[in-house]
Amino acid sequence: MRDFSHGHEWLAINTATLRKQWRLDRIIDECARRDIRAIAPWRDQVAAVGLAAVARQLRDTGLVLSGYCRGGFFPAADAAGLAAALDDNRRAIDEACALASPCLVLVVGSLPGALDGKAVHRDIARARGEVRDGIAATLAYARGVGMPLAIEPLHPMQAAERACINTLEQALDLCDELDAERTGALGVAVDMYHVWWDPKLAQQIARAGRERLLAFHVCDWLTPTRDLLNDRGMMGDGVIELRKARGCMEAAGYAGYAEVEIFSDDWWSRPGEEVLDTCIARHRSVV
Amino acid sequence: MRDFSHGHEWLAINTATLRKQWRLDRIIDECARRDIRAIAPWRDQVAAVGLAAVARQLRDTGLVLSGYCRGGFFPAADAAGLAAALDDNRRAIDEACALASPCLVLVVGSLPGALDGKAVHRDIARARGEVRDGIAATLAYARGVGMPLAIEPLHPMQAAERACINTLEQALDLCDELDAERTGALGVAVDMYHVWWDPKLAQQIARAGRERLLAFHVCDWLTPTRDLLNDRGMMGDGVIELRKARGCMEAAGYAGYAEVEIFSDDWWSRPGEEVLDTCIARHRSVV
Repeated sequence: MRDFSHGHEWLAINTATLRKQWRLDRIIDECARRDIRAIAPWRDQVAAVGLAAVARQLRDTGLVLSGYCRGGFFPAADAAGLAAALDDNRRAIDEACALASPCLVLVVGSLPGALDGKAVHRDIARARGEVRDGIAATLAYARGVGMPLAIEPLHPMQAAERACINTLEQALDLCDELDAERTGALGVAVDMYHVWWDPKLAQQIARAGRERLLAFHVCDWLTPTRDLLNDRGMMGDGVIELRKARGCMEAAGYAGYAEVEIFSDDWWSRPGEEVLDTCIARHRSVV
Repeated sequence: MRDFSHGHEWLAINTATLRKQWRLDRIIDECARRDIRAIAPWRDQVAAVGLAAVARQLRDTGLVLSGYCRGGFFPAADAAGLAAALDDNRRAIDEACALASPCLVLVVGSLPGALDGKAVHRDIARARGEVRDGIAATLAYARGVGMPLAIEPLHPMQAAERACINTLEQALDLCDELDAERTGALGVAVDMYHVWWDPKLAQQIARAGRERLLAFHVCDWLTPTRDLLNDRGMMGDGVIELRKARGCMEAAGYAGYAEVEIFSDDWWSRPGEEVLDTCIARHRSVV
């Protein structure tokens, strides 16, 4: 297992962690200043600065991507909605290519309308079928341009609104169905916040193996957790056994970044400098 | 599949649903007045009225129990804590016997101290081992007095504080280990709030079968959900496919009550009469 205690060369920052403090160009500069080598930006943050400008700034600073957030949200109320989602995913893939991302992270979506509190239907099996078909169609395009897709299982408390893929086992079953040859074109993003509770976690990480383990996200689960979306903890402040999990990942062959992704009203309210410095310190002491 | 639309003979009320409005004796009277045949009371509610008095009132009104809440919380920081938990579970079983409950529901517990925001350790595998050992020891006593134990898998968002058994599959694996002969002494309580998201739900209900399906709890999952504990919805107000789930239960042989258990600051703030009348109406129209 790699020793993270002496440096942070394997730290990546998911830029949602700082979305309330800074625009993406400032985040990139602040990361570069701290010798943070990788980021995972969100599409809206890239759009706010401009895709070409972000690509140029990455080249200038030497930063790379640990992933691009995000594609997905495949289910829809009707055929037009399904087609629009596929179009949007192709655009996300093109952007990921322009930024030389190692993968496009997929938050697959679930019941149409649920995110606005008005679910059009309650048939989660239908949503899961649309997700399967959406990934299959998107994978065909992604293979053509060489962009791996990383399915991110989301915590079951997000099953209605954001993702109807809720366990690593479920995500890997889909990978086996759509990429039986384990070509590397389809895999998973293992975000510990979403999967830490799973009694089959270690078993499924081992099953995934190097070809399927495309990303590793860290933060922490607080007790109590006061909000289903924006109360994630800084690594070390909660109950997730992060180092043990990283051990499982590395035993299975993962050798990439540990990407910090913290949606938190608390951390968003602090100075960005403090957040980044704390990420570096906790990466070394806890992850 | 049974037709619930013409009556509510298979409706049970988990008395936590009315804990902020009424004491247990009043809840029993109000249920009896509405021809509700079954309740599932909590230990603290029984203690507030007195065990003998509750048993007498149940006999007088003809109400029966659909379950007794609850045993469990096996993990502890030290040996004394583990022993105290076993003592407490034996007392819970004795109370369940005194009230002629068909089962004792187990909320198994997880990281010691987490419920108070101060987890003593983060080793969820250790907690799961202590749960296994605690159920095994408790089962020996329960078999002797003929009280079935119903393991309730809790939603993964409760994995740190309340229960480290978080899927039906995990609960049934434990049943298979500790009661391989399917004697009926050990089974599961299927609370739809906790398991509705599970892609293996139908498969695992079928696996459980009649001998293991000891209780069926209903309410609804709201979008958005504003609190991890006390924002459950009334049946029909959320996204859970309750009738489809009941179909799975009955296809597997379940023929018992649909027990309404709603922890909700919203419903606790309404008149108890309105809550009970709504439970009856929704039992007929939605469950």
